[in-house]
Amino acid sequence: MTTNPTWILKRHSSGMPIPDDFSFEENAVPTPRTGELLVRTLWLSVDPYMRGRLSPAKNYAAGAKIGDIMRGGGVGEVMASESSLFNVGDIVQADDFGWQPYTVVAADTALRLDPAAAPVQTSLGCLGMPGLTAYFSLLNVGRPKQGETVLISAASGAVGQIAGQIARIKGLDVVAVAGSDQKVEWCKTIGYRTGINHRTVENITEAVAAACPNGVDVYLDNTAGPIHDAAMMNINLFGRVVIVGTVALADRFDEPDIGPRHLRRILVSRVRVEGFLLDDFESDYVSARSQLLEWYREGALTAREDISHGIESTPHAFIRMLKGENFGKQLVKV
Amino acid sequence: MTTNPTWILKRHSSGMPIPDDFSFEENAVPTPRTGELLVRTLWLSVDPYMRGRLSPAKNYAAGAKIGDIMRGGGVGEVMASESSLFNVGDIVQADDFGWQPYTVVAADTALRLDPAAAPVQTSLGCLGMPGLTAYFSLLNVGRPKQGETVLISAASGAVGQIAGQIARIKGLDVVAVAGSDQKVEWCKTIGYRTGINHRTVENITEAVAAACPNGVDVYLDNTAGPIHDAAMMNINLFGRVVIVGTVALADRFDEPDIGPRHLRRILVSRVRVEGFLLDDFESDYVSARSQLLEWYREGALTAREDISHGIESTPHAFIRMLKGENFGKQLVKV
Repeated sequence: MTTNPTWILKRHSSGMPIPDDFSFEENAVPTPRTGELLVRTLWLSVDPYMRGRLSPAKNYAAGAKIGDIMRGGGVGEVMASESSLFNVGDIVQADDFGWQPYTVVAADTALRLDPAAAPVQTSLGCLGMPGLTAYFSLLNVGRPKQGETVLISAASGAVGQIAGQIARIKGLDVVAVAGSDQKVEWCKTIGYRTGINHRTVENITEAVAAACPNGVDVYLDNTAGPIHDAAMMNINLFGRVVIVGTVALADRFDEPDIGPRHLRRILVSRVRVEGFLLDDFESDYVSARSQLLEWYREGALTAREDISHGIESTPHAFIRMLKGENFGKQLVKV
Repeated sequence: MTTNPTWILKRHSSGMPIPDDFSFEENAVPTPRTGELLVRTLWLSVDPYMRGRLSPAKNYAAGAKIGDIMRGGGVGEVMASESSLFNVGDIVQADDFGWQPYTVVAADTALRLDPAAAPVQTSLGCLGMPGLTAYFSLLNVGRPKQGETVLISAASGAVGQIAGQIARIKGLDVVAVAGSDQKVEWCKTIGYRTGINHRTVENITEAVAAACPNGVDVYLDNTAGPIHDAAMMNINLFGRVVIVGTVALADRFDEPDIGPRHLRRILVSRVRVEGFLLDDFESDYVSARSQLLEWYREGALTAREDISHGIESTPHAFIRMLKGENFGKQLVKV
C-alpha cells in the first residue's frame, strides 16, 4: 500500500483523445474521511460518456479539469471503512473510482456486491450502468411493440449487446450494426436476426433497407453519424429514435456536426427522436437490476467482455473503446 | 353556371413553386354522383402542406399528378345534393375543394357550417385545420407545463397565431418568431410576450437567448431552417420540439437539408423532437373544435386573415404564403 500510480488529465481533448492527454503520476494512497471507504481497485470501466468529461464544453458528465484524477465506474474491495454501511473485505461498486489502484469512494454512492450472485465485474456491464441503459432506453423510451423491428448501433458494445438480447427476449425482430464481420457474426449468436458491418458496407442506407425489409420501428442510436442517417432514411411511420450515445462524434466532439437533417421525414412519418440519460430512471434501478440478474442467471443474458490488464492500460482501453476497437464491454482488470 | 375556370398542375416544383407551374383552364361544371355535392366555392384555403403535393417525392399529402385539378380546403354553398346529409343552400367546409368556382365534394367528407356561430371562413383557419393543428401540436405533443416558455415560429401565420393565443390562455410565457417588425408587433397584441424578426436580426441564436432568458421549454416549429437551429441552441433540459411544418424548406423541398445536427444536445438535455400530423388526432376533433369556438366567441381567440380576391389569384396567394409574404391566415375569397 505504498504506491498508487494514478492517471491525471493533462489536457482537454478537442478531437479523438490520445494517450498524451493523460499523465501517469505517483499519488499518495488516500485516507478516507467520515462516510468514505478506502477501496482497492479490482476493475475499472471505461465508457463513451467519459468523452464528454474531457471536453471543456457543457455536458451532463461534469467536466474534468486539468490536473484532476480521471474517474469512472469501478469495482473494488474495501480496505478501510469510515462508514457503518460497509465492512473491510466487502466488494463494492461505485461510479467514481479514480483511475488508480487505491481510491476513496463515498459510502452512500457505493453498492455492495454479492460475488456468489454473478462475477463482480458484471456490475460494470450487463448488470450495471450499460445494462440498465439498454433496459430503460429500449423499453421505456423506445417502447417497442410486438412484431416491430429494432435496429441497434454499436450492437456488440456494452449497451448494444444487452439491448439486443432484451429485444430478443421480448420477441422483437432485432438487427445489429457493428464495426467488424466478427462482431456481426457474434451478434447473431446472441439473438440479432442479422447485422451490418458499417465499416465495409458500400451503402449503409441500402444495407439497412435490405436488413430491415419491414423498415425500422425503433432505432437505438449509440453512435450518431452516418448510421443515424441510414436509420432515419429507413424509419417507419411513428418510429422512435433513442439517442443513447454519439461515439461516432468522439473525434470531433466540440465541433458542429454538419450533415443531412431529417426534419421533413420526422414530420411526414411522425417520428419521435428522444435523448436518453440513465439518471432519469434511478427510481426504477432496483427492479430493473433484479430483472437483468434473473435473465443473467437463467442464461438468457450473455455478457461479452473485452479486458485490458493493469492500471497502466486504462487510457489505452478508453481510447480503443472510443474508436470501436473493443469487442464487448471494455473493462480494465487492475 | 356555364364557366368554371380551374387551376391545373402543369408541372412539379423542385424549388419554390412559380405561377407558371399552374395553368388556368376552362373546365365543365362537374355533375355530382350519388353521395356527392355540387358546391359553389366561397373561400379557398392555401396552406404549407400543399407544397408537398407538388413534389414527386413521397409525402403525407398525396402527390398531385400533372394535369390534376389543384385541390385544398374550401368553404362553399351546396348547389345540388346527391346525398341525404345535405340540402341545397347549406354552407359546407371540406378538405378537397378544387381550385375552381364550382366543385364536387364527397358528402361524407363535408362539414355543415352554422354561419350564425362564426364567419364561415374561420372553418379554414382558427376553427379549422390550422386551429386544430395549433391546439393538438401545442397541448398534446408539446405538453407545456405551468411557467414554461413556448417559442413559436411563423408566429403570426395560420397555425402560429392560434398556438400563441392558446399558450397565452394557458398562462404560458410565449415568444414569437416572425418575418417582419409589423408581424412581431401584432403578435404582442395577441399575447406573445415578445418577438423576434428573423429576417432582420443579426444573430438569431442570440436573439432567442435574449428573448427567452429562462431558455425554451417547448418549440413549436412551423418552419425548420435557421430558426430551428436557434431554438435547438436554446432548448432546455427535457425540452420538446414539435415539428409542425418546414415552410423554410419550401424552395428546396426535395434536396437534402444540410446543416448542423443537434444530436449531442438532444442527448445531453434529453430533448424530445417529434413530428406532428393533425390526422392522428381525428378522434378528438369535436371536443377541440368546441373549445376553440368557445374561446373565439368569448373573444379570447382573435383570427387575423390575409385575403386574396378571385379564383384567378389562387396560385399567387399560395406562393406568397410559402414565401411568408402573407400576414395572417391566407385565404382566397372566390
